[in-house]
Amino acid sequence: MSQVTASAKNSSGSKDTALESMYDDDSHPAVDVAALGEALLGRWADIRRTARELVGRDDIHRIEGQSVADHRKRVLGQLHYLVENKAVHRAFPESLGGNEDHGGNVAGFEELVVADPSLQIKSGVQWGLFGSAVMHLGTGEHHRKWLPGIMNMEIPGCFAMTETGHGSDVASVATTATYDPDTDEFIINTPFRAAWKEYIGNAALDGIAAVVFAQLITKGVNHGVHAFYVPLRDEANEFLPGIGGEDDGLKGGLNGIDNGRLHFSNVRVPRTNLLNRYGDVDEEGTYTSPIATPGRRFFTMLGTLVQGRVSLDGAAVAASKVGLKIAVQYASERRQFNASSDTTEEVILDYQRHQRRLLPRLATTYAAAFAHEELLQKFDDVFSGRHDSDEDREDLETLAAALKSLSTWHALDTLQASREACGGAGFMAENRLTSLRADLDVYATFEGDNTVLLQLVAKRLLADYAKEFKNVDFGIMARFVADQAADLTLHRTGLRRAVQTFADSGDERRSAVALRDEETQRSLLTDRVETMVADIAGELKPAARLSKTEAAKLVNSQQHELIETAVAHGELLQWEAFTTALHGISDPGTRQVLTWLRDLFGLCLIERNLAWYLMHGRLSNQRARTLGDYINRLLARLRPHALDLVDAFGYEQEHLRAPIASGDEAKRQQEAMEYLRAERASGHAAVDEKVLIERVKSAGKKISKKAARKRS
Amino acid sequence: MSQVTASAKNSSGSKDTALESMYDDDSHPAVDVAALGEALLGRWADIRRTARELVGRDDIHRIEGQSVADHRKRVLGQLHYLVENKAVHRAFPESLGGNEDHGGNVAGFEELVVADPSLQIKSGVQWGLFGSAVMHLGTGEHHRKWLPGIMNMEIPGCFAMTETGHGSDVASVATTATYDPDTDEFIINTPFRAAWKEYIGNAALDGIAAVVFAQLITKGVNHGVHAFYVPLRDEANEFLPGIGGEDDGLKGGLNGIDNGRLHFSNVRVPRTNLLNRYGDVDEEGTYTSPIATPGRRFFTMLGTLVQGRVSLDGAAVAASKVGLKIAVQYASERRQFNASSDTTEEVILDYQRHQRRLLPRLATTYAAAFAHEELLQKFDDVFSGRHDSDEDREDLETLAAALKSLSTWHALDTLQASREACGGAGFMAENRLTSLRADLDVYATFEGDNTVLLQLVAKRLLADYAKEFKNVDFGIMARFVADQAADLTLHRTGLRRAVQTFADSGDERRSAVALRDEETQRSLLTDRVETMVADIAGELKPAARLSKTEAAKLVNSQQHELIETAVAHGELLQWEAFTTALHGISDPGTRQVLTWLRDLFGLCLIERNLAWYLMHGRLSNQRARTLGDYINRLLARLRPHALDLVDAFGYEQEHLRAPIASGDEAKRQQEAMEYLRAERASGHAAVDEKVLIERVKSAGKKISKKAARKRS
Repeated sequence: MSQVTASAKNSSGSKDTALESMYDDDSHPAVDVAALGEALLGRWADIRRTARELVGRDDIHRIEGQSVADHRKRVLGQLHYLVENKAVHRAFPESLGGNEDHGGNVAGFEELVVADPSLQIKSGVQWGLFGSAVMHLGTGEHHRKWLPGIMNMEIPGCFAMTETGHGSDVASVATTATYDPDTDEFIINTPFRAAWKEYIGNAALDGIAAVVFAQLITKGVNHGVHAFYVPLRDEANEFLPGIGGEDDGLKGGLNGIDNGRLHFSNVRVPRTNLLNRYGDVDEEGTYTSPIATPGRRFFTMLGTLVQGRVSLDGAAVAASKVGLKIAVQYASERRQFNASSDTTEEVILDYQRHQRRLLPRLATTYAAAFAHEELLQKFDDVFSGRHDSDEDREDLETLAAALKSLSTWHALDTLQASREACGGAGFMAENRLTSLRADLDVYATFEGDNTVLLQLVAKRLLADYAKEFKNVDFGIMARFVADQAADLTLHRTGLRRAVQTFADSGDERRSAVALRDEETQRSLLTDRVETMVADIAGELKPAARLSKTEAAKLVNSQQHELIETAVAHGELLQWEAFTTALHGISDPGTRQVLTWLRDLFGLCLIERNLAWYLMHGRLSNQRARTLGDYINRLLARLRPHALDLVDAFGYEQEHLRAPIASGDEAKRQQEAMEYLRAERASGHAAVDEKVLIERVKSAGKKISKKAARKRS
Repeated sequence: MSQVTASAKNSSGSKDTALESMYDDDSHPAVDVAALGEALLGRWADIRRTARELVGRDDIHRIEGQSVADHRKRVLGQLHYLVENKAVHRAFPESLGGNEDHGGNVAGFEELVVADPSLQIKSGVQWGLFGSAVMHLGTGEHHRKWLPGIMNMEIPGCFAMTETGHGSDVASVATTATYDPDTDEFIINTPFRAAWKEYIGNAALDGIAAVVFAQLITKGVNHGVHAFYVPLRDEANEFLPGIGGEDDGLKGGLNGIDNGRLHFSNVRVPRTNLLNRYGDVDEEGTYTSPIATPGRRFFTMLGTLVQGRVSLDGAAVAASKVGLKIAVQYASERRQFNASSDTTEEVILDYQRHQRRLLPRLATTYAAAFAHEELLQKFDDVFSGRHDSDEDREDLETLAAALKSLSTWHALDTLQASREACGGAGFMAENRLTSLRADLDVYATFEGDNTVLLQLVAKRLLADYAKEFKNVDFGIMARFVADQAADLTLHRTGLRRAVQTFADSGDERRSAVALRDEETQRSLLTDRVETMVADIAGELKPAARLSKTEAAKLVNSQQHELIETAVAHGELLQWEAFTTALHGISDPGTRQVLTWLRDLFGLCLIERNLAWYLMHGRLSNQRARTLGDYINRLLARLRPHALDLVDAFGYEQEHLRAPIASGDEAKRQQEAMEYLRAERASGHAAVDEKVLIERVKSAGKKISKKAARKRS
């Protein structure tokens, strides 16, 4: 796209020239929207395109305002529609008609959020959780017996893991599965109310079977949480004997899904219903497992289900894109207040604060999008078996935990900012922002509460840190021990050098130049993560000598820092992914604009944690004070490209379905301006009282001047 | 309440002793919940008690999940119920059966949010906006003719101000009211689509009349926006000739209100339907006003409607209280993960991060509550006529704009944090957090978009600054001019001294002591506001010499800083109100705990803006580094009092209506713990595989030790 076209698209073309003068850079780059769009579509571009064609269809759109019952019915029907349209088989075995394409499957699946998050999540329950559990935790016979029915929706099913009493702490679920050698059966039992399965999708109405997670007990030994295939309902859709449940009823969002509770009173299933890939029980009740320790076995089993987090990350990014496209489109058309002219009002995206609200979130969305693409590739590498070492799986889980947490919170923040940026119009359900936000709310706490996930990330960082400093006495996960080594990390990252460079320059403009330097941003962001890890490791050093209770207390005293460290790590990963993607862009204009956007992302991260950089002597006060102004200049530079940047997301009217993003606002503004122009031209427009007063005043001045002249 | 009772209430008593040891203070204060509750109820305690009894009744509770049509019907019925229960007349003239009690009226009104925000806002439309406009903008005859019907709901009405094309910029509404001397009528007209009245409560269904804001034109002169009483619907509830409209349909919340659009095609109303208190037109069409300039007249008219903002501030505080009571109650019962014991899990409020999520928001809610009480008293002073100077009105408006912005955003943030802190349970509609949040969403942008309101606050700060420095050449509102005077402000607040004090002490513990000193907090917060104002004034100094366009551009370059300054000012006002209220508390234990809470509020403000304090040399790096730890210690100190602090809000089960705040969670935990205890005692509980492995290991060690001994 040429510069002229790009300009014309922005705010009806009137403000760009005014803004250009605010740049302190002479280049006038243009974004190649189509090429950027391709970069964003990533490795599975074709699958995404197919999925977007599908989610653009009326048949699978959400109808805002439907009753819970109707919405549930519609989404159930849409699952069948997906089957008919061959949209759900990509991950399953080739022998059963699937493609064994794990990355592609998630890429297509996460686009469903644009049609209706309920559809995305109900599909996720059926194929991503229930189906995946049978596939990854079960073995050949299970696959042959159940996967075809799961794939074609003959067996709508539940993933019954969470209990009322235990959510993120899956290892503590209280449902038991006790082996009875007399009948060769497992007895599934709910011992008390807190052990009811809770928030289970498909449980209230549609599920006829479930994968139930329970403590496997045989010969008096509890071998930890395992998964069991348990039929739930008969052909009349009534619960089978011993099974009961309740409807969760209305939720804050995702009301197209029939979440509910389940409980089991000594329900018997055949021994072979144990999904036995990672742990099996023979007829005598002897337990065997290819994985020796219960802890590792548990994490391996759960690890096979990481795709839930991967796809939530992608869906959160997609929803952020839709929100920003709507808000930026509206902000490029809407005019309000006339500060600089008597007749024409300002386009609201020209207001600095409006840019501050939307453009940093746009930058974060790009960062999250590129980071998601890396996560998806990592996921595909592991699940295709191409790179499937223990370390690969650990990396994947850490990455998924970090990115899912950041992107789901970011989506909520972005959808809310977008809604407020659209004022009252943003609050109308027809413009979708409130509804998307309501649906995505629970993404922050399901498939692992973000707060819990970030602690897992922090623990991994500490473990890596301990490994790196071999001279350190390092015990089990929770007992972090490490040498005080902040200086070491500094040298390691070469940060000292970067810091030095800053200290040398006293010139404000050169400060800004330094801050926008890629290596400087990388050094600052990396240094913060590493120093925080080292600091916490130092604080936790005494834990090894403490009792379990005292050690837990010490770890708790660092919990806030631990989570902040994990966030900083996740943000660094996003920054790195953005930077890597940037280097893959060949068009110079696009690369220039994306560089500004990446700088905006990096500098906003540094601004948010500026106190840290100051307190730790990484930035001088003087340099820190240039940051805000530099960010404001970046915003003004990016503003003419804002529409191109959201257009590159590739969502069309059939995906947005928001009247305020349809061009209606521009038409209304146009009509009003033409009316007022015609009025003024007609000569019979009413005169403003204000204008009259001004006239009287200036007439008065003339008279008194005359009088003064006469007197003199 | 004694310390013992207070402890027993927290987390079933088990964790307090452990936490006590984390305090660095030997005092064990207890909160007098009843007395603190009285302090929070404030001057209109009796009215609030009456209102809370009312809003506790089933009749006016929201039923979650009702269809839009049923919800609207229910809320309409509830308005009649309020009339029957004499809950709506307090502000109206005594001659018509009212009490002329403006503060009391708002105090009672804002409690309605606890029953259903739709009820609060629909009542606000009827009596607070439509009724108030007739009362404050109309005169005797208008009052006699329409107020009785408005008061008793015979005339459900609309407040038709906002248009599709103009929301916060009311002065620019495009609807016209042109005087026709031939018929002695005003002609109300909508010239184009953007001038349709939009988001108007009662417009879709119930409104039979409206106060319409339109540009008053007579004798070819436009005298600016005035209010007109316009009948809308006939007795069959059909639109009158020339009037049309649309239903806004589903919204992101507040669906008990029938918002809609209205348009007027040359609709004629008698000249005397002009609400003529601040501007009148005689039979010949001659315009007169007691207020000479159109600008001042406009602000005076709008100023009479400030109570909308006042009551949104109060309602936002009330909703935050409800959210926190639910989340803190649940967090005091819910247990998850067992870091410190093998059998008992931690109460989640004992986790540092959970404290960080909830307790600073609790502190802010207290600050906002006390600030709201001051706002309400100011409002009552002005509207009762006791203190009703121009300056009083200006102060009231600035205060209302600042506090409404802060508290409505705070409510959204708090309800979201509360919902996430309750995990999946927080997402269930029955626990009310998602629904309250959805309803309150639009509070941030209606009755003045927060972003716009904060700019008004900033302008006022700049104007005051200019007045104070008389030697300064100061023009009209938008043209800010001021001497560079950062140093002056420093001396004025005595901040230099405070800063000096810090610089002298190198001891970490003394640093924390200094930061919790009331005067230090005040100085830091005040200094920041004053310095920011002075800095912006300096930046805007050249505006006087610039063209209108260039001046607007310069002001826009400071827009972000302007808004941040207004936020800082509002937060300072909240801190001052909290501190004033604190000094009014006589019980030593309560005062101690509230002092910690106020410190938490103040120090979290300083922490959030720590970079500013560092960059401007107000805090040393060393001192700044003590802040995070000190906040963590405050959290641990406050944790045993958290339940008392939310109980003092005085909301009972009939107000909360959230199963997770009913004690059910504690009962479930109790049942589970008893079951597991009995199992362990029975001797036939399954043994953990992990435990077996440990046993084997230690047996192995013993054997090898024996072997070693034999060898040696």
